[in-house]
Amino acid sequence: MTAESDREEIFRAKGRILILSATLGNETRDIYIGGDGLIEYVGTGGTARHGRDAAVTLDGRNHLVLPGLVNTHTHAAMTLLRGYADDMPLQEWLSQKIWPLEAHLTGKDVYQGTRLACLEMIRSGTTAFNDMYFHMEDAARAVSEAGIRATLAYGFLDMGDPGKREKECRATEALVRHVKGLRNPRIRAAVGPHAVYTVSPEGLQWCAGFAREQGIGVHVHLSETEQEVRECMVARGDRPAAHLDRCGCLTPQTVAAHCCWLDREECSLIAARGTAASHNPTSNMKLAVGRAMPYHWMRESGARVTLGTDGAASNNSLDMFGAMKGAALLQKFFWNRQTLLPAPEALSMATEAGAAALGIGPGRIEAGAPADLILVSTSSADLTPLHHPASNLVYSCTGGSVQTVICDGRVLMHKRVVPGEQEALEGAEKAARDLVSRASS
Amino acid sequence: MTAESDREEIFRAKGRILILSATLGNETRDIYIGGDGLIEYVGTGGTARHGRDAAVTLDGRNHLVLPGLVNTHTHAAMTLLRGYADDMPLQEWLSQKIWPLEAHLTGKDVYQGTRLACLEMIRSGTTAFNDMYFHMEDAARAVSEAGIRATLAYGFLDMGDPGKREKECRATEALVRHVKGLRNPRIRAAVGPHAVYTVSPEGLQWCAGFAREQGIGVHVHLSETEQEVRECMVARGDRPAAHLDRCGCLTPQTVAAHCCWLDREECSLIAARGTAASHNPTSNMKLAVGRAMPYHWMRESGARVTLGTDGAASNNSLDMFGAMKGAALLQKFFWNRQTLLPAPEALSMATEAGAAALGIGPGRIEAGAPADLILVSTSSADLTPLHHPASNLVYSCTGGSVQTVICDGRVLMHKRVVPGEQEALEGAEKAARDLVSRASS
Repeated sequence: MTAESDREEIFRAKGRILILSATLGNETRDIYIGGDGLIEYVGTGGTARHGRDAAVTLDGRNHLVLPGLVNTHTHAAMTLLRGYADDMPLQEWLSQKIWPLEAHLTGKDVYQGTRLACLEMIRSGTTAFNDMYFHMEDAARAVSEAGIRATLAYGFLDMGDPGKREKECRATEALVRHVKGLRNPRIRAAVGPHAVYTVSPEGLQWCAGFAREQGIGVHVHLSETEQEVRECMVARGDRPAAHLDRCGCLTPQTVAAHCCWLDREECSLIAARGTAASHNPTSNMKLAVGRAMPYHWMRESGARVTLGTDGAASNNSLDMFGAMKGAALLQKFFWNRQTLLPAPEALSMATEAGAAALGIGPGRIEAGAPADLILVSTSSADLTPLHHPASNLVYSCTGGSVQTVICDGRVLMHKRVVPGEQEALEGAEKAARDLVSRASS
Repeated sequence: MTAESDREEIFRAKGRILILSATLGNETRDIYIGGDGLIEYVGTGGTARHGRDAAVTLDGRNHLVLPGLVNTHTHAAMTLLRGYADDMPLQEWLSQKIWPLEAHLTGKDVYQGTRLACLEMIRSGTTAFNDMYFHMEDAARAVSEAGIRATLAYGFLDMGDPGKREKECRATEALVRHVKGLRNPRIRAAVGPHAVYTVSPEGLQWCAGFAREQGIGVHVHLSETEQEVRECMVARGDRPAAHLDRCGCLTPQTVAAHCCWLDREECSLIAARGTAASHNPTSNMKLAVGRAMPYHWMRESGARVTLGTDGAASNNSLDMFGAMKGAALLQKFFWNRQTLLPAPEALSMATEAGAAALGIGPGRIEAGAPADLILVSTSSADLTPLHHPASNLVYSCTGGSVQTVICDGRVLMHKRVVPGEQEALEGAEKAARDLVSRASS
């Protein structure tokens, strides 16, 4: 067994990384990552040449290797509001706490908040996320520096006002132009019509058209609450999914977040359009939305279901291990079926389905796939014994068991060390403090 | 600021520990633990004398200090079955997976499983637990070595069979005699009638009488499923809580686990008897019991509500941070109230209420209280920013943020190092492997 490379080398390398003897599923495998950031080899014994070529060698013994987790719905910069207000009635929480703070958010804050979010995601094994917020150019800067992948959407809300709509269209165009101009393969843009109750039909149609024209995705909230469904029926004469579809927003590149109140027909519609749903169990429970996504109907329809955390104000954690466990628990409990959403399905929602939804490869550890992968230590109480790795990953461990994170062929965390962590924590803590003080002065 | 003591000293000391500048609530406090294992001083500036007397000094800066968490319902040795089988219909899971394995469990297995459970609990900030299982003499040995507190009950199941009942009475007596003989103030015995559907009225009455005679507590499952309520109405002509009460089992020293299907009157009865309920949200969701404990009625009645994880086969984690978050989420979601079970209440269920239920002091950091306390690092992404410590503790961090654990004046973990950890992991892994192989041969 070759000794591990030293820390400095590990964080410097772009690809040319050899991971020896990690556990993949139930097998022991060596993995070689090429200089192009793709997985070149997964197997056993074929390590002589890779050993010569490798700039970095990592010891995978006593570690499970799995694809980096994909968080398909969050508002990353809301980490600054984590724990600022909880346990309040929704409208009071939004109007008295969240919105007044958000009104004071600057681009610098969004940079600091997104940087903190990226750090938290890396530390819990997430390598890609789907984000919707504002000041997204600053979010892009944080993502670029952090080294993970993101799909960034400007949250488009016109509230039926044509003037506001114009501004939202220009802001959306500007972000897409900015992101494309970065030419960073880890960062993509999407169009982000907020929801049917905050965006007019004209706004939704514009978003759909612009996304199609640009060849990019759509990120939208869908049927989070019963009120949204009721009001949509009154205002638009149809349920939210059908309304979104009529406006062109349900595409194979769309991610629809929440989907709690879909009826059976809407599940089939989502499936027929190839749209990915993002299940956000923790946020749905914390905000007491009253219903869990009808996962059994989604699965029966063949709809693509992924997982998200939602923003840190309504979860309050970005740990996707928590989202996997939350989904597996909530589905069983709400739909009263002990067999619904077994652990391997939760894992595949957070990996394969998530990666497919964001268009970033197969979300599996295989030759040719992007080298987005994580090593989870099995030498800990919560992963012992190891009867079934998928069960321990979903039900008993947390992101704290992730030791190493690689994204696009670069090591972002090793042995739980993330370069620059202290600076990111201090920057976010200060930004949050200043924000509260500005908002209350 | 005095430098921290070295690791060897830290793990050797019994009391005489000075913790400097930790955050207690919203204040910075120094804490001195006397040689008797009690907290002697909590304050600021009074550290000159304590500095001279201290055998060990710990740096509490950038740490929240809170009472050790109390897990009021588990079956510790079931860690050996963690992840062995999940996502199955309850009866099939029990009869085809859990019971066949349990039939092969030996005292040695229970020792190894309980040792693993103690390790997992220490690593996630739990300093006391309420256990019900069998081969409990071996569980006592594991607890004694691990250094935490436990109340141990032999799981009494007579299934209405007088011959079996006799055996269960003798086993219960033997455990209580054994535990009292240990003269270990950290370890107590309780009487453990399993539930109304597994113990005859005569068995329940005997348990109640024996507990009273011995001056010890009762640990019982109560109204976990609707089926239990229905069958009890048919068989005993009354709901489970009333039936337990008629048999004398509801006392101020009783912990009743689950309490999902209590009606309003039963909540008042529990309150009137001074019995503590143990809410186990994760287990209840995973096993799809169909209803959440009616926490609002419990609170209105003034009932004492504590928190538990249940065993590792049905959770599958013993992390009480997960139980706190699970409770706060499940209550809001199931009872459709965004304000139900706010973070500070979840924290007090896991500390003050739990400690009171097991009779181990106030569950607060104050002079005269047992020195059972934990330090949680705030220098991590999931605890940043720190708008409200209680919110971060309940909603965003996990047991992985606990750095230091002190129980009965001894340091059991410091900077996430627990002496003897590797040996405990290997012993449990081997015991689990051997158990499965015995059961399938």
